[in-house]
Amino acid sequence: MGLARFGLEVAYISVIPDNPIGNACIRELKKHNVNTSFIPRKGDRLGIYFLEVGANQRPSKVVYDRSHSAIAETGSGEINWDKIFEGTSWFHISGITPAISLPASKLSLEAVKKAREKGVTISCDLNYRKKLWKYGKSAPEIMGELVKYVDIVIGNEEDCQKSLGIKKDIDVESGKFQTEKYRELTDNVLGLYSNIKKIALTLRESHSADYNGWSAILNNRKEFFVSKKYEIHNIVDRVGAGDTFSAGLIYGLNNLKNDRETLEFAVAASCLMHSISGDLPLISVEEVKSLTEGSGSGRVQR
Amino acid sequence: MGLARFGLEVAYISVIPDNPIGNACIRELKKHNVNTSFIPRKGDRLGIYFLEVGANQRPSKVVYDRSHSAIAETGSGEINWDKIFEGTSWFHISGITPAISLPASKLSLEAVKKAREKGVTISCDLNYRKKLWKYGKSAPEIMGELVKYVDIVIGNEEDCQKSLGIKKDIDVESGKFQTEKYRELTDNVLGLYSNIKKIALTLRESHSADYNGWSAILNNRKEFFVSKKYEIHNIVDRVGAGDTFSAGLIYGLNNLKNDRETLEFAVAASCLMHSISGDLPLISVEEVKSLTEGSGSGRVQR
Amino acid sequence: MGLARFGLEVAYISVIPDNPIGNACIRELKKHNVNTSFIPRKGDRLGIYFLEVGANQRPSKVVYDRSHSAIAETGSGEINWDKIFEGTSWFHISGITPAISLPASKLSLEAVKKAREKGVTISCDLNYRKKLWKYGKSAPEIMGELVKYVDIVIGNEEDCQKSLGIKKDIDVESGKFQTEKYRELTDNVLGLYSNIKKIALTLRESHSADYNGWSAILNNRKEFFVSKKYEIHNIVDRVGAGDTFSAGLIYGLNNLKNDRETLEFAVAASCLMHSISGDLPLISVEEVKSLTEGSGSGRVQR
Amino acid sequence: MGLARFGLEVAYISVIPDNPIGNACIRELKKHNVNTSFIPRKGDRLGIYFLEVGANQRPSKVVYDRSHSAIAETGSGEINWDKIFEGTSWFHISGITPAISLPASKLSLEAVKKAREKGVTISCDLNYRKKLWKYGKSAPEIMGELVKYVDIVIGNEEDCQKSLGIKKDIDVESGKFQTEKYRELTDNVLGLYSNIKKIALTLRESHSADYNGWSAILNNRKEFFVSKKYEIHNIVDRVGAGDTFSAGLIYGLNNLKNDRETLEFAVAASCLMHSISGDLPLISVEEVKSLTEGSGSGRVQR
Amino acid sequence: MGLARFGLEVAYISVIPDNPIGNACIRELKKHNVNTSFIPRKGDRLGIYFLEVGANQRPSKVVYDRSHSAIAETGSGEINWDKIFEGTSWFHISGITPAISLPASKLSLEAVKKAREKGVTISCDLNYRKKLWKYGKSAPEIMGELVKYVDIVIGNEEDCQKSLGIKKDIDVESGKFQTEKYRELTDNVLGLYSNIKKIALTLRESHSADYNGWSAILNNRKEFFVSKKYEIHNIVDRVGAGDTFSAGLIYGLNNLKNDRETLEFAVAASCLMHSISGDLPLISVEEVKSLTEGSGSGRVQR
Amino acid sequence: MGLARFGLEVAYISVIPDNPIGNACIRELKKHNVNTSFIPRKGDRLGIYFLEVGANQRPSKVVYDRSHSAIAETGSGEINWDKIFEGTSWFHISGITPAISLPASKLSLEAVKKAREKGVTISCDLNYRKKLWKYGKSAPEIMGELVKYVDIVIGNEEDCQKSLGIKKDIDVESGKFQTEKYRELTDNVLGLYSNIKKIALTLRESHSADYNGWSAILNNRKEFFVSKKYEIHNIVDRVGAGDTFSAGLIYGLNNLKNDRETLEFAVAASCLMHSISGDLPLISVEEVKSLTEGSGSGRVQR
Repeated sequence: MGLARFGLEVAYISVIPDNPIGNACIRELKKHNVNTSFIPRKGDRLGIYFLEVGANQRPSKVVYDRSHSAIAETGSGEINWDKIFEGTSWFHISGITPAISLPASKLSLEAVKKAREKGVTISCDLNYRKKLWKYGKSAPEIMGELVKYVDIVIGNEEDCQKSLGIKKDIDVESGKFQTEKYRELTDNVLGLYSNIKKIALTLRESHSADYNGWSAILNNRKEFFVSKKYEIHNIVDRVGAGDTFSAGLIYGLNNLKNDRETLEFAVAASCLMHSISGDLPLISVEEVKSLTEGSGSGRVQR
Repeated sequence: MGLARFGLEVAYISVIPDNPIGNACIRELKKHNVNTSFIPRKGDRLGIYFLEVGANQRPSKVVYDRSHSAIAETGSGEINWDKIFEGTSWFHISGITPAISLPASKLSLEAVKKAREKGVTISCDLNYRKKLWKYGKSAPEIMGELVKYVDIVIGNEEDCQKSLGIKKDIDVESGKFQTEKYRELTDNVLGLYSNIKKIALTLRESHSADYNGWSAILNNRKEFFVSKKYEIHNIVDRVGAGDTFSAGLIYGLNNLKNDRETLEFAVAASCLMHSISGDLPLISVEEVKSLTEGSGSGRVQR
Repeated sequence: MGLARFGLEVAYISVIPDNPIGNACIRELKKHNVNTSFIPRKGDRLGIYFLEVGANQRPSKVVYDRSHSAIAETGSGEINWDKIFEGTSWFHISGITPAISLPASKLSLEAVKKAREKGVTISCDLNYRKKLWKYGKSAPEIMGELVKYVDIVIGNEEDCQKSLGIKKDIDVESGKFQTEKYRELTDNVLGLYSNIKKIALTLRESHSADYNGWSAILNNRKEFFVSKKYEIHNIVDRVGAGDTFSAGLIYGLNNLKNDRETLEFAVAASCLMHSISGDLPLISVEEVKSLTEGSGSGRVQR
Repeated sequence: MGLARFGLEVAYISVIPDNPIGNACIRELKKHNVNTSFIPRKGDRLGIYFLEVGANQRPSKVVYDRSHSAIAETGSGEINWDKIFEGTSWFHISGITPAISLPASKLSLEAVKKAREKGVTISCDLNYRKKLWKYGKSAPEIMGELVKYVDIVIGNEEDCQKSLGIKKDIDVESGKFQTEKYRELTDNVLGLYSNIKKIALTLRESHSADYNGWSAILNNRKEFFVSKKYEIHNIVDRVGAGDTFSAGLIYGLNNLKNDRETLEFAVAASCLMHSISGDLPLISVEEVKSLTEGSGSGRVQR
Repeated sequence: MGLARFGLEVAYISVIPDNPIGNACIRELKKHNVNTSFIPRKGDRLGIYFLEVGANQRPSKVVYDRSHSAIAETGSGEINWDKIFEGTSWFHISGITPAISLPASKLSLEAVKKAREKGVTISCDLNYRKKLWKYGKSAPEIMGELVKYVDIVIGNEEDCQKSLGIKKDIDVESGKFQTEKYRELTDNVLGLYSNIKKIALTLRESHSADYNGWSAILNNRKEFFVSKKYEIHNIVDRVGAGDTFSAGLIYGLNNLKNDRETLEFAVAASCLMHSISGDLPLISVEEVKSLTEGSGSGRVQR
Repeated sequence: MGLARFGLEVAYISVIPDNPIGNACIRELKKHNVNTSFIPRKGDRLGIYFLEVGANQRPSKVVYDRSHSAIAETGSGEINWDKIFEGTSWFHISGITPAISLPASKLSLEAVKKAREKGVTISCDLNYRKKLWKYGKSAPEIMGELVKYVDIVIGNEEDCQKSLGIKKDIDVESGKFQTEKYRELTDNVLGLYSNIKKIALTLRESHSADYNGWSAILNNRKEFFVSKKYEIHNIVDRVGAGDTFSAGLIYGLNNLKNDRETLEFAVAASCLMHSISGDLPLISVEEVKSLTEGSGSGRVQR
């Protein structure tokens, strides 16, 4: 949805049950110009989650209710990738899909392999979630294989370590970070996987549930960029910030001059996402640019 | 409404349509002791606006829907100023009225001329709004003339420049300000308009949509006062802060010992307005004084 | 309720009218495992209060509507303390009960005397409320007597002074505090009342209505502990923080290793209470420990 | 408020505490043009009640929390009736005031005596409430005396019997009614009290909590009128219907041609009140007349 | 939107301002599969209206705020009808558009003339609104001309009379109706305009604001059909019922076997619309058929 | 919960996941005095459902999301029935449990067999749900077996037919019913299962989604009772009415004089449940008796 709102032609691929809950989901996607015509309508249920919104020292908590969702019960061979990748130039996949079930992990692998075959550029947001990954495989077992087909890796410092099994003494909890360690961490990933062209990580300094610092780095094998850092003092809702970073990055790689601009666009877009209630990225290119080019002073526009 | 809640006898002059929407508006004014008996009930519609409330780096946005409102379609000769100014000692006008239409700008000029004739003290909040001023006249063309009848000018640094066409290299966006420049700016205005007795400007340091510094200055030709500055970290709703500053200033000029006290009262009142939802100044003199005399520590009163 | 949620066996003693409002109150207590079987169901009304929630420089305000409540009209002799204290090891009383009426103050004194007779440990949160204490007795007259039966005194710097009449030049409003003065203040109290074994005070640095520093001290005659201080920038609702501190302290004195751990547990529990809407302490031991042992960085748990 | 909205000049007499709750009450009255300048601002609390809204076979329930309200603790001699009745032509009193406390019953008697002395017309809505009348006097003891000073008595069949102690075998619960019995009942009242000029009773046929028939009768010693009956199938909120009937009746007696028109106006006004949420009569003369003259077919006006 | 939800390929033609309010409107249309690509984005404002929802004897009231809306200020020559009618088989227009302004009435005439030229079938819902038609032309002047280009006329008994100036003694208010009179009325219209192929009228028996009988008739010059009548006792929101009738009729004329089935489908669809909050027809073909084929008994589907 | 609110000692047996959603469920049960100590806390998820509330001709719709709930994945052998039935006199089971999965159906059979062994009286609400029963067994296969252990069968006319496979030409949709047919239907059931002592069926005449007639019959092999019928014109929420009927019946069989009184109590209790929002039976014995003994006229209690 983020990419569609940025003006790109986008289709969403998932499996959604053929019931009123699924219909509501499809309509919401259409509202924001997402092509839903490739989505099989079948299965028992739509995965949901319950979110307790944190404040100050009290963290947000997620209770997943995703088991046995339609996508979780879909395996390889059930989606017509050939048709989907026809005329498609980019495929983005999240590490959440392979985390929810064994069939879904096989479907995910099938997808990236097919995309690679068709010459489609592949980006992957590692998206490590401890409370998922309960079906008997560890994240590195699956993600380590999947990443071999990926051109652009996206994540945060924890994702890299937990999804790919790369150890680095970065203190996630404290929120403090050191540039040099991030360069090493991303160099490690690029060293292990020669297929990866670029890797971008978001850096969250978590001072409290509603006050975070937010920035990112990008390593394209030649250059290492550190973005501007935004101080977000009154987080409205941080859910969706990572996805918005991915959308910003893909938008930039396809539409902006260079990786530096791309990184700044992605960080600004995902910064704004912290100030929007819900997980839908109701953000335009103009709003992002007004932040990258302006002051973020929040003056009323009237 | 602010003045009425501070205990002054106040009448509100506008044109309000004779329909249920207009009735609701009139009742709300009465609730807070504002005399509504001079308001002609006619016209098609009440102007409205849509407000998207910002947060952090995401600014608030206003979509005006004020065109063809009852007051916008009222011209000179349609309001009985003689009757209104009978027994009146003070007239306050906002720069928003002349901004909405040519007839309203003529009505505004007529009002200040009549008030001047009757010996009524006149205050004017310049209130520059870029998204209004669309009927063919520029703000300085109209406001430059109107201000010639005014005793007390109120505004902010942007208003002075955009409404009166006075250029000064003050960086509004950044939120940083320098006392000396404000002295010069206000001296300029006082130099150009010998009728103006005092000018007061609010100074907003906009760190983000919900964190602003808030203070003000007052230049009475003899003295130049800089108020205390309030740090407002969790703005609830900033709409109405400027109007509350005007109300505080007029209250002070009529009821307090001197200009210094007046300025502090006006700044404290408008500071409190940032912590109130909606644009109605639900504030008492006691609450303002408890802030000017106290610590603003926000301890529960129980 | 706080103690019940921490897993202790707890009964609540009050008087609650036998009407639907009282029933709702009883049910809410049961929901959280509080034994309500000792509560007489009689009287005219349940005391209520109206809360205006503050923000920034605008303080929260409480309008009490507690007069003539069922508990306010209950005097000594009307509650069967013998039965209540059978098999009970701890009795906690708040300074609010003796503040609401003369009969309630006599009932309170009767309660602590009975508890002392039965060898029950007694804790008392002084809880000074200026807007109560209107029935002709001053707080020190009553609380000075009541405290003679108490083992553990809980309060804040203002409570000590206003409830026990001990003068100390601590500036409550400013929010700044000095460790040495607190040691002296608590030494004074312990000096005056040889029955008191320990005294713990919360220290609130009130920067604004929604930004407070929060910590506490404990003096057990041998040691003087100063807790970690929490910065709470976006207070959701501070009502109930003091009661949660008491619950945390009683929990710790009964379940934790030593007074230092107990103090940290109580401060962390009451810190979390600032981030919960309403005055019910919806907090578990695990959540408190995750704060005392962790970083309070508020990262999403998913 | 009903009378004020019908355009009459009205003052409300009660005692309201000088706190924010009282202020809100005063402002709401002003909003609807009620003069509040005679209301003493004192006392502890404003009486409130809790309402459980019924549906179908489940009745609405009221829990009164009116004891010790400001008006309940005000006795004779505390209100300056001389000043109030100066230039006043009509005084309306409800049977709820004498029901809440002994002092209030004395104040009520004092009021009607003073009004009678000054030649003010007096109307009284008997308003029997079983859950009030708890201070040791029965309703007939007090109301029987009070009614001796009244010109216009208003009520329903239950009020007459319970407030004045007149027995009549009218089955209130069943909702069925017989015209002849009402004529007898009102003749009885007029026979007992020669001072009463007219008596009007509302007749509620209660089919369920949300479906009532609604009509009224008026006996002016010469004629006996039975109004049109309205079937109200989807009651929104019936609280305030009786007060609106009183307002309609007083409006009619002062402004309409005759008792028949007056009765129809009062019934129509109170019929509309069943379709308005809350107990404020947000009704205009035009709306009532559009019902008395029209069909009540509820067609959209557009 | 109704037609799009019934599965037809539909484009909506209007003029919508290029601002966030207009964007929200466009997105809502897309959500329900309406093609919005022909809508010019220009003009000052989107027309709005305020709705007071009635109950029982209290009618709903509409306050229009449609003057100077984008579509009201669009005249003939500003919309590219040639492109729009390319490949289009059906054009539906409402009598509200020509009612709002002189330019809009000219635009409307231009539209039907162009459609006729292109061989597009034209349906028109007369939709008479007394509170519109304020620009100097009467409804019959404009609608009488416009109807000359129409194939299918839709309306109610009032529309026919007020829009086309045909007098018939049908008592709209009472809600009673007589079949024979409707046959005559529609015969009259068909007699006057030989171009009209079919005319369908909805018949609303308005017992109260929330209880209506709902049926319809259709006269196709050869046959005269009277539909089943639905009793709707608890109207949720009747706004949009007329538009849904039009959608049902157009759906049926394009997809169902004959005029009888079409009429029943249209009546059932618009009957359901009375039970949906808001004016969006969130209704599927399956739901309508389940009503035309079933009992409307409202049993839970589980 | 219904039984607990009627004052019986009740434990609820299910399987509830050990997460915050499960905790909330447990607390709600405790609030209403239900013993939750036998509930195993395990499994992935709590079954939920989505409810679209109907109105008039638009039916309510349920979307079940119960698959893979904790109880659905619990099979025989996992619950300690011996401990549960110790000291228990009555066991009630709903036909929903065996409908959700094969393991749950085995668990259900195990439960009734164990209860029978222990001499516990068993009641069963057949509760047929078409959208469940998807795991390969038909309702009659399972329920036919289960009912062999049951003393009291509860249901409606559809349940009997669909759950037990007994055909009878009763038109469920139309809402019309004939006493004689119900006598035959229940005689059939009693004839087939000699263990059943009594059978009670609710009779819903579904006029629309919000207007139902509601009554019931009871056949105890000796007598056949037909209850009073309630007309419910403005249904607030009918979910939970069947469960409340069961609760009323069990209450009556244990506490009231005879089957006639029991049936009337159960019908009145479940009638009231139609007027309560949500599916929790917030009803007391007093409220039910006030309906069985009174008029259901819905007069305000004040």
